[in-house]
Amino acid sequence: MRYNEMTTVQLKSLLSEELAKYEGYKSMNLALDMARGKPNASQIDMAMSLLDSTRDFGKGAGDLRNYGMLDGVDGMRKLFADLLGVDKEEVIAMGNSSLNIMYDMIQRAMQFGVYGGDGAWNGKKVKFLCPVPGYDRHFAITELFGIEMINIPMLPTGPDMDMVEQLVSSDESVKGMWCVPKYSNPDGITYSDDTVRRLANLKPKSKDFRIFYDNAYIVHDVFDTKDELLNIFDECKKVGSEDMIYEFVSTSKMTFPGSGVAAVAMSRANVEYTNKLLGIQTIGPDKINQVLHLAFFKDVDNLRAHMSKHASLLRPKFEIVLEALAQFEGSGMLEYVKPNGGYFISINTIDGCAKEVVRLCQEAGVKLTPAGSSFPYRLDPRDRNIRLAPSYPTENDLRMASAVLVNCIKIASYRSELAKR
Amino acid sequence: MRYNEMTTVQLKSLLSEELAKYEGYKSMNLALDMARGKPNASQIDMAMSLLDSTRDFGKGAGDLRNYGMLDGVDGMRKLFADLLGVDKEEVIAMGNSSLNIMYDMIQRAMQFGVYGGDGAWNGKKVKFLCPVPGYDRHFAITELFGIEMINIPMLPTGPDMDMVEQLVSSDESVKGMWCVPKYSNPDGITYSDDTVRRLANLKPKSKDFRIFYDNAYIVHDVFDTKDELLNIFDECKKVGSEDMIYEFVSTSKMTFPGSGVAAVAMSRANVEYTNKLLGIQTIGPDKINQVLHLAFFKDVDNLRAHMSKHASLLRPKFEIVLEALAQFEGSGMLEYVKPNGGYFISINTIDGCAKEVVRLCQEAGVKLTPAGSSFPYRLDPRDRNIRLAPSYPTENDLRMASAVLVNCIKIASYRSELAKR
Repeated sequence: MRYNEMTTVQLKSLLSEELAKYEGYKSMNLALDMARGKPNASQIDMAMSLLDSTRDFGKGAGDLRNYGMLDGVDGMRKLFADLLGVDKEEVIAMGNSSLNIMYDMIQRAMQFGVYGGDGAWNGKKVKFLCPVPGYDRHFAITELFGIEMINIPMLPTGPDMDMVEQLVSSDESVKGMWCVPKYSNPDGITYSDDTVRRLANLKPKSKDFRIFYDNAYIVHDVFDTKDELLNIFDECKKVGSEDMIYEFVSTSKMTFPGSGVAAVAMSRANVEYTNKLLGIQTIGPDKINQVLHLAFFKDVDNLRAHMSKHASLLRPKFEIVLEALAQFEGSGMLEYVKPNGGYFISINTIDGCAKEVVRLCQEAGVKLTPAGSSFPYRLDPRDRNIRLAPSYPTENDLRMASAVLVNCIKIASYRSELAKR
Repeated sequence: MRYNEMTTVQLKSLLSEELAKYEGYKSMNLALDMARGKPNASQIDMAMSLLDSTRDFGKGAGDLRNYGMLDGVDGMRKLFADLLGVDKEEVIAMGNSSLNIMYDMIQRAMQFGVYGGDGAWNGKKVKFLCPVPGYDRHFAITELFGIEMINIPMLPTGPDMDMVEQLVSSDESVKGMWCVPKYSNPDGITYSDDTVRRLANLKPKSKDFRIFYDNAYIVHDVFDTKDELLNIFDECKKVGSEDMIYEFVSTSKMTFPGSGVAAVAMSRANVEYTNKLLGIQTIGPDKINQVLHLAFFKDVDNLRAHMSKHASLLRPKFEIVLEALAQFEGSGMLEYVKPNGGYFISINTIDGCAKEVVRLCQEAGVKLTPAGSSFPYRLDPRDRNIRLAPSYPTENDLRMASAVLVNCIKIASYRSELAKR
């Protein structure tokens, strides 16, 4: 029965049942964490042989232990290129953090402008379109640089493209857009073919407009049903819009979260422009780590095989949380989409309850991502979205955390409804 | 005899002798390189066991393979702190490139300002003091950001402190200064105690003023006579000026040039301010590489012992070049100081000859750093300075390269003198 169709007596009785349970959980002194999309040690362990994968780093002018090679190791660029469906020359393989690459791309745009653009963004009004819910660390970067963020609702097909098209084509200050096109953070939505085509065919009013396309979960399937994402560069090349795309990728959630290899894929013109600035900034990336990664992965097929082992570890964890949430079916208390991959399950409580659920969980020893985190300025207009990250806890911890979460959602929902009567 | 005291007949005869030699060198199709301060493979080989130094990266919340730990691995911060004579809390251990840290510190100042300062540098007149000759990549960064560079002559004691004090205390737009305080690039000069004290006691007109103190050669002795550098932080702390210093260090020339660990040391207030911005920029540094480095070095004593092995490899190379240059003694054709460490020998030809010497060498198959590189805007006002980098070539190659260099200096000098008569 839907929670809002119950009698007040029914609601009060259910609430006291849940409150009793809640006190029980609190007395257990739990310390569980579903807050961040951190891989579990069991996933990381599978990459340990990487550190011994080769000791061949080349000789003479090709000694990859020495300085130089701004674009990264050739083979590693090729591996990323194969993964993304672009050419090796369209990839720069860099350091351990794709977030840092994104930050740098924005910093360069602010300070020096973008290729073919209107010069430095500093001193101008700059707006970014932000599909919501989205990734808090993306929004933190744009907020830091004083870029105005505009919420774009996520639909089951990806960002609301009507709104995107309208804003991009009419407002010159719209100079960027954040995207997590596959298994989006946090919804787990993969952009439809139509969405990708419409992105590629955008006609921006500003020459500066860039899509920051964070393909963080490109091979991060969890279930047997795998989402397919259209190659945006293929679509862009049909219409000559490839300068508009910065695509980011990394091995952080394949090998070592803090010590992987990250890369950016972009048009040759963008690569050339970026390299001119990058060549002043650094002498080159850590190529030893790139060589080790390349020797470990060998090729894309092998990389995919490695990722299917990750899926085997993640699948039971996603199932534990999804199973716990299943009891809300038909209750009207919770909305969510079962994702086929990625690192998160994104839930929407009834309006105005997310913060309270997170608070209740926290008090009972279950740490969740702060409510609102998935929105620019940490403002969820309906205070309903919570991002769940099932990867890091053990299965047992996850069972307990999910039970507490279910309990807290019920308490918050019942109370909210009772308050209205 | 001094070249300018010879008769014209003598000069012409010597010139034609050298030209004959030069044709001989050219016919050998040499391909030698004394252009950049790259360690030789034999030096890098000594660090290979680093990659196998440990497989213990911690467990649970301390799993150093996972995300997080913005400041770097505790032990690695401690090692750098011990090396620099500061506290662990005053060090952030980062990625593979100290140059990138310097770039980022300037980028942050431009965009957001410095701790306790007057806000973003963007949009303001900003000047940096640049001891010359100096490091071309320093100057490339300040040039990129549109910062005006002011030449400060290097004396045997370090930068001309009278000039530094006068400019820093009187001009609010002077917001920074580049320093390589030990075995300076390229002169190999170590700042005297008095110079360090005067730096620490600067009374800047601008609240923003920062010394970018690149201690790249802190343990890079080459000869048995070792220079000692006063600890600038000790001096600063006596007068409360420690916020003025950003000190940079890295293991690039200790372990792997492209895959070392770099760090910045600064006051706690600067660390705190920087971390707020850094926490938006990245999830953290490559801690696996830091753990491997720490396990390899263990402590500062052991690090110094490792560096003395580097010195054994570098010493004969420096000796080869210095021996070749010794024949210029009393000739009036060349000035240089024998350095006790670092990566370079910096020579001054007679005025107006540096470019010509580099060109002649290039044509004979010996690559040198382009003349002027060691000056802001690549402008050596007297066109006389050439930076020699003896580390990368083999000893045999270096003997040949030095012979060609000597030959080319003579040709250029004789011609220059003859042209005046």
